[in-house]
Amino acid sequence: MDTVMIWAAFAIGIVSVLIAMSKYSWIKKQNPGGERLQEIGQFIADGAMAFMKREYKIMFFVVLAVVILLSVFKQGHEKVIAVSFVTGAILSGLAGLIGMKAATKANMRTAHSAKDGLIKALHVAFTGGSVMGLTVVGLALAGLALLTIIYTTVFGIEDLDFIVQIISGYSLGASSVALFARVGGGIFTKAADVGADLVGKVEAGIPEDDPRNPATIADNVGDNVGDVAGLGSDLCESYIAAIIGSMVLGAELVHDYRFVVLPIAIAAIGVLASIVGTLFVRTKEDGNPQFALNLGTMGASGLMLILIYPFLHMYVPAGLALPGTELVYSVNGIFLAIISGLIGGILIGIVTEYYTADNRKPVQMIAQQSMTGPATNIIAGLQVGMMATGLPVIILIIAIMSAYHFAGLYGIAIAALGMLGTTGIQLAVDAYGPIADNAGGLAEMAKLDAIVRERTDKLDSVGNTTAAIGKGFAIGSAALTALALFVAYKETAGIEVIDVTKAEVVCGLLFGAMLPFVFSAILMGAVGRAAFKMIEEVRRQFREIKGILEGDTKPDYIACVDIATQAAISEMVVPSIAAVVIPVLVGFIGGKEMLGGTLVGVTASGVMLALFMANAGGAWDNAKKYIESGHFGGKGSVAHKASIIGDTVGDPFKDTAGPAMDIIIKLMSVVALIIAKMI
Amino acid sequence: MDTVMIWAAFAIGIVSVLIAMSKYSWIKKQNPGGERLQEIGQFIADGAMAFMKREYKIMFFVVLAVVILLSVFKQGHEKVIAVSFVTGAILSGLAGLIGMKAATKANMRTAHSAKDGLIKALHVAFTGGSVMGLTVVGLALAGLALLTIIYTTVFGIEDLDFIVQIISGYSLGASSVALFARVGGGIFTKAADVGADLVGKVEAGIPEDDPRNPATIADNVGDNVGDVAGLGSDLCESYIAAIIGSMVLGAELVHDYRFVVLPIAIAAIGVLASIVGTLFVRTKEDGNPQFALNLGTMGASGLMLILIYPFLHMYVPAGLALPGTELVYSVNGIFLAIISGLIGGILIGIVTEYYTADNRKPVQMIAQQSMTGPATNIIAGLQVGMMATGLPVIILIIAIMSAYHFAGLYGIAIAALGMLGTTGIQLAVDAYGPIADNAGGLAEMAKLDAIVRERTDKLDSVGNTTAAIGKGFAIGSAALTALALFVAYKETAGIEVIDVTKAEVVCGLLFGAMLPFVFSAILMGAVGRAAFKMIEEVRRQFREIKGILEGDTKPDYIACVDIATQAAISEMVVPSIAAVVIPVLVGFIGGKEMLGGTLVGVTASGVMLALFMANAGGAWDNAKKYIESGHFGGKGSVAHKASIIGDTVGDPFKDTAGPAMDIIIKLMSVVALIIAKMI
Repeated sequence: MDTVMIWAAFAIGIVSVLIAMSKYSWIKKQNPGGERLQEIGQFIADGAMAFMKREYKIMFFVVLAVVILLSVFKQGHEKVIAVSFVTGAILSGLAGLIGMKAATKANMRTAHSAKDGLIKALHVAFTGGSVMGLTVVGLALAGLALLTIIYTTVFGIEDLDFIVQIISGYSLGASSVALFARVGGGIFTKAADVGADLVGKVEAGIPEDDPRNPATIADNVGDNVGDVAGLGSDLCESYIAAIIGSMVLGAELVHDYRFVVLPIAIAAIGVLASIVGTLFVRTKEDGNPQFALNLGTMGASGLMLILIYPFLHMYVPAGLALPGTELVYSVNGIFLAIISGLIGGILIGIVTEYYTADNRKPVQMIAQQSMTGPATNIIAGLQVGMMATGLPVIILIIAIMSAYHFAGLYGIAIAALGMLGTTGIQLAVDAYGPIADNAGGLAEMAKLDAIVRERTDKLDSVGNTTAAIGKGFAIGSAALTALALFVAYKETAGIEVIDVTKAEVVCGLLFGAMLPFVFSAILMGAVGRAAFKMIEEVRRQFREIKGILEGDTKPDYIACVDIATQAAISEMVVPSIAAVVIPVLVGFIGGKEMLGGTLVGVTASGVMLALFMANAGGAWDNAKKYIESGHFGGKGSVAHKASIIGDTVGDPFKDTAGPAMDIIIKLMSVVALIIAKMI
Repeated sequence: MDTVMIWAAFAIGIVSVLIAMSKYSWIKKQNPGGERLQEIGQFIADGAMAFMKREYKIMFFVVLAVVILLSVFKQGHEKVIAVSFVTGAILSGLAGLIGMKAATKANMRTAHSAKDGLIKALHVAFTGGSVMGLTVVGLALAGLALLTIIYTTVFGIEDLDFIVQIISGYSLGASSVALFARVGGGIFTKAADVGADLVGKVEAGIPEDDPRNPATIADNVGDNVGDVAGLGSDLCESYIAAIIGSMVLGAELVHDYRFVVLPIAIAAIGVLASIVGTLFVRTKEDGNPQFALNLGTMGASGLMLILIYPFLHMYVPAGLALPGTELVYSVNGIFLAIISGLIGGILIGIVTEYYTADNRKPVQMIAQQSMTGPATNIIAGLQVGMMATGLPVIILIIAIMSAYHFAGLYGIAIAALGMLGTTGIQLAVDAYGPIADNAGGLAEMAKLDAIVRERTDKLDSVGNTTAAIGKGFAIGSAALTALALFVAYKETAGIEVIDVTKAEVVCGLLFGAMLPFVFSAILMGAVGRAAFKMIEEVRRQFREIKGILEGDTKPDYIACVDIATQAAISEMVVPSIAAVVIPVLVGFIGGKEMLGGTLVGVTASGVMLALFMANAGGAWDNAKKYIESGHFGGKGSVAHKASIIGDTVGDPFKDTAGPAMDIIIKLMSVVALIIAKMI
């Protein structure tokens, strides 16, 4: 193995974490605002911390159980896979925790600084996002590099196949924790959101984020544990899975150590590019913040490509045969595969933006259909969501075929890295949104000047396009990574072909295609049940605690946070564990080939549902905003009421079930990969 | 070929048609009721006829175009495939037309006879359904037998492969027409339904089926062209596709003429059993009509099995090797494969019933969630629909694996025939529902005594379980038939394996999995647009024609029928043609293997969406009925209003997009099969 290269990656990872830490201390130094703002901010931070403590306690036991299983069932040296697993789990958990910490610190400071101007607020919010972005990629890279070094130098393992086998435990750890975080956080945030909206806005007639609503703190806590911490663990998982997927194929298909190290090197270059990219996100007081965000992300991707090309020239050996074809691996081939992924991801993002932006036809159509009531609003939203599977899948297919054409199956895995190489800055932009959103909530609750809310709303809407591209990357890379892991599974399991005209394969495929639907149903049911409890609690408080609606008495915020916490904790366990256990059961009962069919079914159906749910949810949300901005009757109109209903339906779609799909498809593949040799 | 056997099948088909004709003339002899009833009934019959004329005119040109293409691109003797195609198209169209005719005659007579009692009304309605049921299977069987006889004796073709190749055109013809009928009828009926409900019930506050509502006639026309004629063409298609799927595998896999004739023979036995079954559907005035319907369908299935077993003993050659295994085809094996399909279909039906019946948990949960408004009602319905994919898929897998275990891939095809053998009586029960429903509408419009409506409502609810089992058969057999056709495609195209770890196969699969989503989106969009036009027209009439709401002036019913007709005609063309063209494009651009992947993707994703939509729609519908029967506040409550919205969302799900899925998956497979040798 190429130890120097891996040490360099480790160093870059550490640098990224150090920069993130310095940004974190910069944020802490900013003015946290007045007493009321601080008090509410502290409420939210405490609620989020309380939830995560309980969530992580449950996860601890699950991780422990898997470690025991891995140590018992894996033989000899393979037992060290448990070390990879624990490392992945801890780092993914840490990524979510740090992101949440930074966000709860940044949101009140963003609200306070928005008093002075848009640009200062943008800077604070984006720096908060950057802390998470750079921490996630830094930790993920450094951890992976360190494990590789330990296995090769300390344990002295030289067999490539074996190294990637035990390192894939790292991905399993990250994915398991990410699924818990996404599911738990997703249920929490939407239970609180739906509960707060339905009783507060609809029944009591008080505005969003009004401090008289007992569920409002829970709602804001939810944004931090779901949209921020969940997102952090999620992208950490995607990032790791994409790197490891490429590494495994490098070992299994190419059998050359340089193709195993290459993904780590590309990731390291991407981290450097991301760090530089964050520096571009600056603008003057009369500048365009949207432009600054785009410059940062696009600049980082561009820089990554510029740095990678000469690196590939130095590193990729000439003339290595592409197995199963007459082609050879070439510098240009691999570079073009990376570009295929990157362009594919950007295009999927642009399509996502088209289907969910309020200045485009689909959202305006939903808004128009809201005029005839909730039924037509819902039909229109479902229609837009289903339609939005079309172009992204075609783009994905073109990206896959191009990457395959340029660099074989290894190219498909590398294409995912093309999208996720710059996760550092991409995640910073993604996390910036909820921070700005939360700052707006805080401004409302702390009764800051109206101009503050206006500015945070503007901040929130800026970056939507960039965030849409992030979603495109998330779904696109999930599909590519799942395919790469699937191919890796086939190679590791020693299956000749996975022929879909065989009965067991087609049965596995049908079974796999069904799973994302049932998972989504379970998650939506969990949100529904939790929201129902929340609604009952809010109604109880309005009824029993005198003076809440008059603003004389404070509602019992903690009770609502507790309800959401308990519901999320109790509901997240079954689906998360099921996702790990099912591939094991299918493999041992139905055999290797049926499991192969299952993986492909889960991937196909999971990608469709992820696209469907993300786009329908986003479109409903923005149709509501479009109406609120004065169209089709504006606030309070029939159309507006209908659009609120659509938005509520879309919430569990886009923030609970949808994002879980991306994780499930990779988690199942990686579980299959790990048990492949035992079946 | 076994000419005697096929002549016998032909004769049985003709007998079935003759019995249906005698039933038809019996219906015509019944009392059509008073003048007002007859007038309205005539309005509906005329509207339905006008729509079908225009619909069939469009279809004529499409059929003509396909005939020309087939004659041009097929070589030599293969050109006769065009004859098969035309025959299939004509018979499928005829089946829908006759069913519609019988239904529009039977509905007013059912309404009138309901004055005298429940039992008489049941008899009239069921006889109306039987006309369609026996005509469909009689025509389908006789046509298929005749074609086989002509090709073997007149043309003197002896090559089995070649015969099944050209006969598969019969299935293509039936499927193409069925898709048009389902899509066109589905758009018509739901546009009228949604339009009538939203303006009539919600805005003007007049009850369902009130003659003051201008869209009410269109709504009833829709029931006849969508729920009856569409259903007829649909089941005709399923029936034919299941028989032909088995025939093709008999030729391609077993290479024995008896395995090609066997499916025709099984179908003929099923027709006989269905005819006998209709005789069981009798009951005394104090008897249980539900029991009578169950006795008819279950009796027919039982009788079919009893007749088939000795027949198999006579007919199946002993010791023929199962290709690819060490097993041999045996009488018991084939018999058990048939039973696997039959039991699988019944179980899927029972699960469907569980998820959609108003005395079960899922529907009651939706009703309960309606208390917190439309948003929670919708989330609950989507959740139930997604959850309802779980068990049916597992049952399907067990049925496939059993059938495969007992009789190889041929067994999977034969299992579909186990479900569809008794289509004759199953369809009679399915069609009986809309006839009873329509009779209720007529009773309302003609202002008959309240007891009439009560009785027709009871008739409508009786047989829901039987109809649910019919839905289970439809989806289950569609999956099995699609798989059989898919295997036939692989054999015909001469592909060794369709390996999903190949890039082109997996891309095809992703593309295929996307198609059902986009199709559903297009169909829902079409319903939305057509409903919007309908709403505008109804509003215009209320505004411009004085005295409608007071009951002094008759509304312009014809204008509403015209709008639904035009909308349905113009919207049905693109999706129907796309379903035929897409496999051709994928095949010629992406190659044989990519097309194979596409077929499997369409099947997996189509089955999931069909289950999801059918169950969600059914559950929403019955949740509304459950609330209307006095639960959670009953009629006029918040829960009731929310449940009406859920029901409206479910309408295009269960009656437009959902049923189209079953057809699309088979249509694409049969197109692929026909072009397989040309790619």
